[in-house]
Amino acid sequence: MEINNSTSPAKTNVISHLIGFPKKLKDKAIEIVKKTKKIGKDDPRKIWHAFKVGLALTLISLFYYYRPLYDGFGQSAIWAVLTVVVVFEFTAGATLYKCLNRGFATLTAGALGVGAKYFADLFGKEGEPIVLGFLVFTLGALGTFTRFFLHMKRRYDYGILIFVLTFSMVTVSGYRVDKILELAHQRLSTILIGTATCMIISLVVCPVWAGEDLHKLISSNLEKLATFLEGFGSEYFSFSEIDESGKASKEDKGFLGAYKAVLNSKANEESLANFAWWEPGHGSFRLRHPWKQYLKIGVLSRECACHLQALSGYFNSKPQAPTDFHKRIEEACTKMSIESSKVLKELASSIKTMTQPSSSASETHLRHSKAAIDDFKSILATTEALLLSSKLDLLEIFPAITVASILIDVINCVDKISEAVEDLSVQAHFKKEKNKNKESSSSPEKPPPQHHLLHRGIVKPVVDVDDVEGGDSVMIEICGGGAAVAVVEEQIVRV
Amino acid sequence: MEINNSTSPAKTNVISHLIGFPKKLKDKAIEIVKKTKKIGKDDPRKIWHAFKVGLALTLISLFYYYRPLYDGFGQSAIWAVLTVVVVFEFTAGATLYKCLNRGFATLTAGALGVGAKYFADLFGKEGEPIVLGFLVFTLGALGTFTRFFLHMKRRYDYGILIFVLTFSMVTVSGYRVDKILELAHQRLSTILIGTATCMIISLVVCPVWAGEDLHKLISSNLEKLATFLEGFGSEYFSFSEIDESGKASKEDKGFLGAYKAVLNSKANEESLANFAWWEPGHGSFRLRHPWKQYLKIGVLSRECACHLQALSGYFNSKPQAPTDFHKRIEEACTKMSIESSKVLKELASSIKTMTQPSSSASETHLRHSKAAIDDFKSILATTEALLLSSKLDLLEIFPAITVASILIDVINCVDKISEAVEDLSVQAHFKKEKNKNKESSSSPEKPPPQHHLLHRGIVKPVVDVDDVEGGDSVMIEICGGGAAVAVVEEQIVRV
Repeated sequence: MEINNSTSPAKTNVISHLIGFPKKLKDKAIEIVKKTKKIGKDDPRKIWHAFKVGLALTLISLFYYYRPLYDGFGQSAIWAVLTVVVVFEFTAGATLYKCLNRGFATLTAGALGVGAKYFADLFGKEGEPIVLGFLVFTLGALGTFTRFFLHMKRRYDYGILIFVLTFSMVTVSGYRVDKILELAHQRLSTILIGTATCMIISLVVCPVWAGEDLHKLISSNLEKLATFLEGFGSEYFSFSEIDESGKASKEDKGFLGAYKAVLNSKANEESLANFAWWEPGHGSFRLRHPWKQYLKIGVLSRECACHLQALSGYFNSKPQAPTDFHKRIEEACTKMSIESSKVLKELASSIKTMTQPSSSASETHLRHSKAAIDDFKSILATTEALLLSSKLDLLEIFPAITVASILIDVINCVDKISEAVEDLSVQAHFKKEKNKNKESSSSPEKPPPQHHLLHRGIVKPVVDVDDVEGGDSVMIEICGGGAAVAVVEEQIVRV
Repeated sequence: MEINNSTSPAKTNVISHLIGFPKKLKDKAIEIVKKTKKIGKDDPRKIWHAFKVGLALTLISLFYYYRPLYDGFGQSAIWAVLTVVVVFEFTAGATLYKCLNRGFATLTAGALGVGAKYFADLFGKEGEPIVLGFLVFTLGALGTFTRFFLHMKRRYDYGILIFVLTFSMVTVSGYRVDKILELAHQRLSTILIGTATCMIISLVVCPVWAGEDLHKLISSNLEKLATFLEGFGSEYFSFSEIDESGKASKEDKGFLGAYKAVLNSKANEESLANFAWWEPGHGSFRLRHPWKQYLKIGVLSRECACHLQALSGYFNSKPQAPTDFHKRIEEACTKMSIESSKVLKELASSIKTMTQPSSSASETHLRHSKAAIDDFKSILATTEALLLSSKLDLLEIFPAITVASILIDVINCVDKISEAVEDLSVQAHFKKEKNKNKESSSSPEKPPPQHHLLHRGIVKPVVDVDDVEGGDSVMIEICGGGAAVAVVEEQIVRV
């Protein structure tokens, strides 16, 4: 009886499952189409990338379809196909990284492999496989271990892999093929054709620059932090609107999640910076653009995002009605939040437009936000009177005090970000903003530091980004860039 | 004159550079040896891994060195060498991921490629290259685009790559080789030999389990948070020691950096969880161990580390001498910090030993830390008297209040971590701790929640981890695991 009872619903289940199957399939297809559309809309370059890979593959196929090319390379033209599939990456930097690593590794490992083959020949028919086996084991183990060194992994991981691969293949196959030099030559030339195809297509057809992506990511992360602070500043200390239209303001809480993407962008930033290192100069970015300084700003952004996470916790447990103390500190705290948000916005836009932030609006806002801290502290110093008259108790003002304290931390963090962005603007030779220069000369409170002026003097011929491709100034520019990179490396180590 | 002046130091430079070269080379060599020793000491498995790759490569070479094997596979045995180098990864999970992806992708793409070849044959000599070119372009572009889907990327990225690779190679080379079926068969079997070698060596010789690494990482991250809180609790509110022996206590600040590794472990955790998914059951970990729940604990740990970062800022700006207020809250705050550190330590050790944390010491410590919060709040409520007598001003106690407030946030966060670890212990069928059970029955303040009991009832036969490999209970266990995973997926989405 029990079995019968349990089977009949199972049967119905199977039938309803079969009836529902076409609908499920349709739903799945619709879902995939929707996802595809979303990816294409968010970043049309991804669709372009797919086309580019298809194009490169089809081009390489020509080696097979047209007899003259095929006769030249024979079976090993297959290596060109393999190279294209394996090497073609989304960003130009990643493609270059893989192409250059693959090319150089194949060259050196091929040469070493041929050498090993001739060396092993000296040991006669019996000794040859033993010597070759020993060499393959040693090179394989050593190469694999080298990939654990952090510096090697970051820059040459793929190259080491291809080195071990080519060396093993050349020595091992050389034992039987006998035409080892021809094999090495064919393999090298087909790989060069494959990498050259990839590099040209990836650099010419709608190139996706890792450096540009990193640049935009850092700038948009600062904007996200600013969005949060702006929203927080205008909502946490204001109660009037909530009472009147609670619904409307609840829908407005989109800013609360803004910091989360910043917290999780570390891995993305680092891989972009690694790939950007391989890219040639493009647009406003020179060959030795200080990518490491972007990482420094990224670290500080995440530190700031940490504070914002704490703030968002307090936003959710915001009291229903303002206390007297709330009202007293409202102005100062709102100002702290709004002004620091303005600083971040200025910094983000100065990165975006590649103009120098120093002596511009960002400094003014930073000064305002610091003044707000002082305001808050003086309010705090005069609050005892209120406590004395027992209009409020310490327990009630406790969250508000903490929020203010976190805001002060945020401002300190924003100060550090501002300094880092200023360093970046010097190292990357950002343009000077013409309109704001006059304004700053009328408020000479903070003269630019000495090294700042010095640096500007040295590289003056290339300060203007439009000049970057001019002939004579190129060498000076690279020297300047080199020195700047050295400085950044020191700073990164300190971080 | 000027040129002369600048050249002679340059000459001296070159000479001193040449003289110093052997020394530099020696220094570099010593540095590399030191780094190697450090890597080997930190994780001897890395040296083992290098040996394993060498071993696999040498084994595969046998296909070339011994004629019978060579006669069977011919030139294409080279694919086995290639497979080993490309597929052998550090953890068993990553190796399995690549092996299985490569195997299945080669199989399906090989079959599809042969089909495409016969399909293109229908269009005659002229049409064949056009049809094949079109197919390669379409498959190449579609495959590349599929890699942008997040779910596909996580699990099948490598498989899609190999699919596109094999399909292009089979169809393109098939146009000339004419022995296409033989080629596909040879390629498939050599790849299977390569992957089988890798899988066996990686699973049998000192296997490195991604799952075990993730398990240890999560547990050690909790320990790091505990170390910070322990150090902070005993140092921030105590002044006596600093006055007497300032030096000794300054050397003790190692705990201050403990949280930083936790903040940066996201990428590592996620890749380990992805690879752990591919691993078979091993040790105390079953096939469907709830790896996603580890990620949830990881997210909460990072949230907690964020708070600790804020705390560390206050530690550095700690006042020189305690105020009266400091002394009043010292006990409560120290208790908050120390007790929450004890909770984290209990949780870490309960993960490490795979025993159920519920109804054990961790809950007691959590209760103590929450009691400390109440203590602090009642102190705060009675502090007005002090303010009234003007023994302290609000500005002076401002940092101490913030520190206490962050500590409260930390405890809330630790509470969430404790819940997540408890969920993990249920889903992963952690052992019950026998000694502590009696203790908890004598303090039945907090009965376990309903679903908790229910769940235990269902999976009772396999609660004991030692039973995992028993025959009859396996199906029940997988069902339980499956249901648990579904629950986690929901929770992850919410996070």
